[in-house]
Parts: sequence; structure tokens; C-alpha cells
Amino acid sequence: MACTRFLTLNPNSLRPPIHISSNVRALSSHMSPPSTAVFYEHHGPPDTVTKIIELPPVEIKANDVCVKMLAAPINPSDINRIQGVYPVRPTLPAVGGYEGAGVVHSVGSAIRDLSPGDLVMVSPPSSGTWQTHVVKDKKFWHKLDKDTPVEYAATVTINPLTALRMIEDIVDLKSGDAIVQNGATSMVGQCVIQLAKLRGIRTFNIIRDRPGSDQAEEKLKKLGADEVYTESQLDVKNVKSLLGNVLEPALGLNCVGGNAATLVLKLLRQGGTMVTYGGMAKKPVTVSTSSFIFKELTLMGYYVQNWLTLDRNEECREMLDYLMGLIREGKLKYDMELAPFSEFHTALDKSLGKLGSQPKQVIKF
Amino acid sequence: MACTRFLTLNPNSLRPPIHISSNVRALSSHMSPPSTAVFYEHHGPPDTVTKIIELPPVEIKANDVCVKMLAAPINPSDINRIQGVYPVRPTLPAVGGYEGAGVVHSVGSAIRDLSPGDLVMVSPPSSGTWQTHVVKDKKFWHKLDKDTPVEYAATVTINPLTALRMIEDIVDLKSGDAIVQNGATSMVGQCVIQLAKLRGIRTFNIIRDRPGSDQAEEKLKKLGADEVYTESQLDVKNVKSLLGNVLEPALGLNCVGGNAATLVLKLLRQGGTMVTYGGMAKKPVTVSTSSFIFKELTLMGYYVQNWLTLDRNEECREMLDYLMGLIREGKLKYDMELAPFSEFHTALDKSLGKLGSQPKQVIKF
Repeated sequence: MACTRFLTLNPNSLRPPIHISSNVRALSSHMSPPSTAVFYEHHGPPDTVTKIIELPPVEIKANDVCVKMLAAPINPSDINRIQGVYPVRPTLPAVGGYEGAGVVHSVGSAIRDLSPGDLVMVSPPSSGTWQTHVVKDKKFWHKLDKDTPVEYAATVTINPLTALRMIEDIVDLKSGDAIVQNGATSMVGQCVIQLAKLRGIRTFNIIRDRPGSDQAEEKLKKLGADEVYTESQLDVKNVKSLLGNVLEPALGLNCVGGNAATLVLKLLRQGGTMVTYGGMAKKPVTVSTSSFIFKELTLMGYYVQNWLTLDRNEECREMLDYLMGLIREGKLKYDMELAPFSEFHTALDKSLGKLGSQPKQVIKF
Repeated sequence: MACTRFLTLNPNSLRPPIHISSNVRALSSHMSPPSTAVFYEHHGPPDTVTKIIELPPVEIKANDVCVKMLAAPINPSDINRIQGVYPVRPTLPAVGGYEGAGVVHSVGSAIRDLSPGDLVMVSPPSSGTWQTHVVKDKKFWHKLDKDTPVEYAATVTINPLTALRMIEDIVDLKSGDAIVQNGATSMVGQCVIQLAKLRGIRTFNIIRDRPGSDQAEEKLKKLGADEVYTESQLDVKNVKSLLGNVLEPALGLNCVGGNAATLVLKLLRQGGTMVTYGGMAKKPVTVSTSSFIFKELTLMGYYVQNWLTLDRNEECREMLDYLMGLIREGKLKYDMELAPFSEFHTALDKSLGKLGSQPKQVIKF
């Protein structure tokens, strides 16, 4: 069980050391509570290198805010950071996690616009959200409407924002246009269906062949999907005859690779663009010469991280507020499974695919 | 021999029938000479379906110009048109060829700005240039400086223009930037090296492994290539260490596919773009998910045909005049082999790769 993983550790290796300076403000500083955290010292398999430990209190400086975390998701990029294969990752040792939300526990002496009890999310996302108490500079905290569901606030940045930006930034889509996507049951896929629907854009959705694909199809159609097919249903020459009431799509979204990416390319219209934002099948994208020259397809990638910088924080928070508005109105929803922090390693195993296909795991503290 | 392929044919199946109308202008019309042509009635292997025949004289209408052809190239797209695999192709039966140049033989009654003896090229390119006398509306003929080498006038549109537009249209390249290309010994490849050099853009060139690659390297360096490597020299992990004095390229050009395309992708810099304009290896382009997401590469195709329409003819002719100016100044040159029309089928065999690697075949009439 998770409790057996508790360790004692030199806190200076992880949290910044407390310096008693001559600055009088230092005298007014105060300390956070101890924090229970998912911690790793080395890169490697996440289920073996992460341990739950208690970190000692840290100083809350004048511009810091200490937040009692309420929810934080396990995203594939979190797993890749721990594995050491993600290009942007924290220096070791580190606490896992990147997105999250919670309530303000206490604030530094210079903080005026946040108070204990305020609901906040980490924005831009920042390392170390898988712990009970996070202390960060105020610029990393975005105050939220009290009635924002905390599990959505904790997950709205990486996946729903990717969906929104891919719909908005790549191709000039108008009402009546269409999108084709694979991996349509993913969190991004679910958001694409709903955000496209709000804009009058139709979606052609490709899902994996697996037990329960009928229920998955039904679920996606309830969200607003126009057409839903499994990969094997599409693995035919006359794939385009299945477009139904969906126009040939101008935009394709690929988070799978391999054959599922080829299907997206086949369904795209002349001059269409396919955006790759994930590679769940761990297979590359293969494209014929004639797709480039005669079908005039463009292929590119999408990396939402480019939006998630302090420079673009204002603009980004406006987009997140838009998404959270939709969430509060019930116009945007997606599957999640809430996992108590004490069962972190079970949630991690689910995220690693060791227990079959599972919804997004969100840790509840 | 080619002469054995002469056939007699009903001319009405190929050239427009002559109508005696009540219009008095028709009375002033005159006829072209008979034309010896490379003719095909069915799609199929070009070396078996093409025959050399004599076509009877056709009417030269008021706005027509009859040109005695001097030169016309055999491009891969000409071969694909005869095979029936090219998306844009003439209705059958047809005369082969698409580019070409010659001298005006006679003009229709309404023609004022062209006279017998003028050097002209087909612009925009248009079907049926593989014959001794071509009659087309005046809008298809572009008058040239008398000192333009005719074999260059006949070949400047499809390949050199592709090179020019790919350098200009895809990425905003500045002096000091770099391009990486495979198939660098191709006509487009040779033009890219020289046109880039004129702009201060460096080129990293990938050529095939084959006997004579040392001489090919030397030749490309004489044209201005900064770095030249064979595919096997680059098939190593530290490929980037070979960039030498070439910056990581922002633009990649691919006319091969398969491994040679992967090498271009590897050499591109973060955020670079690879353009596919051919597929000589008949293998697709394969791209990893991380190349899209983390290296932020964009892949697209280039199809010069989109420039070669009557709508864009003015703009296009300005670009061709620029290229022919460079040619006359000796700043742009490329390998060609001139083949007498009587040896057309040998030149065709060379173009089909049946006689090993050969330079571009240009028919001289």
C-alpha cells in the first residue's frame, strides 16, 4: 500500500533552504505545514521510482502563496517526465505532477489579492503538484469562481486547452466544416467533439477496436459526435463513403499514430491539415508522396506547452476562464476517475495502462 | 528504330476538325505543315504505348500560332501522364510532352505581336509538345530573347521554377540560413544549390550511394553546394555533427522519400519545414510523433502546377524571365542530354531508368 512507501528525507535536497537574512521582512516570514508528496530521486519506471514521503515545512516568502491541494491529474506527460523522456522536466529530486487546484492555506506578507479559503489553480502549470501543500510565487496561482468543480479546474489546462487551440489555431474553420480525429475517447477527443459542436463544426471520430466500443460510440454521440467508427470498420478502400453527413474534413487530429493516423489522412479533404498531438500507438506517421504533392496535405504537431508560459499567462487564463465557464454551464464535460491520494499507486498503475483502458486518473487530496 | 513506329491515323481523332463556316475569316485561315508526333491511344507503359506518327496539317485560326518545335524535355510527370497515373492528363488519344520551345512558323490573322522566326516557349505548359509543329492559341506562347539557349527555354518551367518557388514560398529564408535537400543531383536539386547561393543561403546536399558519387559531389560543389554527403555517410546517429559550416536548416526539400526523407527530417532545425516534391524511391515519408510535437516540424507538399495556370500567367512569366536571365548570364545551369527526335525511344528508355542513371533527356527536333 501507499503508506508503506513513506520515507524520511533531508528536506534541503528538495525544498529551498531557509536563510536567515538581515532583511527585516525575513523575520515576518512564516512556514507551510509539512507536505505529503509523490517524490522521485531518479528517472525510471514511475511505479518503482516514486515514493510517498513527508516533506518538512518550508518558508512562505512575501510573494508566496501556500495552497492546500484538492485535486491533481496524472497526465501522460507527467509519466514521461518521471521516466526522463520528456524534453521539459524538473531537476531531480522532484515531486511529480504539473497541473492541479486547491484552496489557499496561507499567503506571504505582500499578497493582497488572495486570501485563505480562495479556490485557485496552478497557472501556468508548474512542477510538483502531487503533494498536499504547495508553496509557489503568486504568479503561478489563478483565482477561480467558487463553484468551479475542483477536478475540472485541476485538469482544464493540458487537455481541454489543447482541444480548444487545435480547433482555433490551425485551420480557419467555419460553421458546417468538419474535423476528423482518432483517439476520440481521450480527454482531448471528448473536448474536441463538444467545442466543435458549439461552433457548428461536425466531427468524424475514430476509436480503437476493443470490448465496449459500442458504449464508447454511444457516449461520444451523446457528447455531440456526428460519426463514430472503430479503426477496423474504416480499414476499407471506400472509407470516404462512410463520411455520412460529415463533409470531407479540413482538419485532422492525431494522437495515436500508425494506422489510425493513416485513416485520418485518408479522410481529410484536398489541402487539409493533420495535427499530431500524441502517439498512443507508439508508431510513427507514414505519408505517401502523392498525399503531399497531389492531395496537398500539410502535417504538423501541436504542443500546448508553448501557450503555458508566464509571458502568455494573461491570454492563457482568459481561455481557461472561457473553458471553465462552459464547464460550469454543463456544456463541457469529460470522463475522470477520482482516486484518493492514499491510493496513488493504484491510480498510477491505471494511468500506466496496467489495468486495461481506464479514464483519466485525478488524485483527490 | 523510331521510324518503324510511323503509323497513319485519322487526324480528326486528335486535331480539331476543320469546319467551313459562314464567317469570312475562315476563308483567310491557313494550314500548318504536317507534324511528326509522339502519340498514344491508351495509357500504359510509355515505351510500348507511344508511337511516332505523322499528323496531317491543321487549321491555324485567327488567334493561333504555329510553332516549329526545337526542344522539349521528358519529365517524370510526362511519363506518369502516359502511364495514366498523373492526376492531370490529356484526354486520349494524345501527343506526349508538356514543356517545350521553338520558333514561330506562321501566325493566325489576328496575331500582331509574334512573327515567323520569333523564339517562343509554351507558357503555361500545355499538352502535346512532343511533335515537330504545334498549333496553339497565342496565350500559350511566350516570346523570348533570341539568345536564350533553346534547351533551357524548353526546360525552365517545371524544374527550375519548382526550385525557385520552394526557396521563396515556404519559409522566410535570410542570407546565412540553410537548406537541406535530398536528390541533390536532380535538375531541381542543381537549381536549388545555385539559386540559394545567389541569396547567400547555404545548402546541405544528400545524394544517392552509387558509382560516381565522388564526381557528383565535385560537380555539385562547383555549382556552389556547401556540403555534400551520400545517404550511407549520413546513416549514423551523430548526423548533425556533419553539418560543417551549414547552420541547422530551416527548410528541407525531399524528392526521394524513405530513408532519404528521414535524413532531411533529422537535419532540420527545431520548427523546420520539409517540403516533398517528388518520390523517386517510391517509399513513403515516415515521421515520429516527437518530431511533430517536440521538434515542431511541419511537412507539406509542393506542386508547381498550381502556378502554371492562365490566371497566374503574367506573374509566372516574370519568374521565368528572371530564371532565363540568370541562364543567359551563366549563373544558372544544369545537366541535360540532347537527344535527336529520331532517337526518341532511346531517350525515353533513359528517362525510364532502363539504362542506369542518366541526365535529363531533352528532345531536339
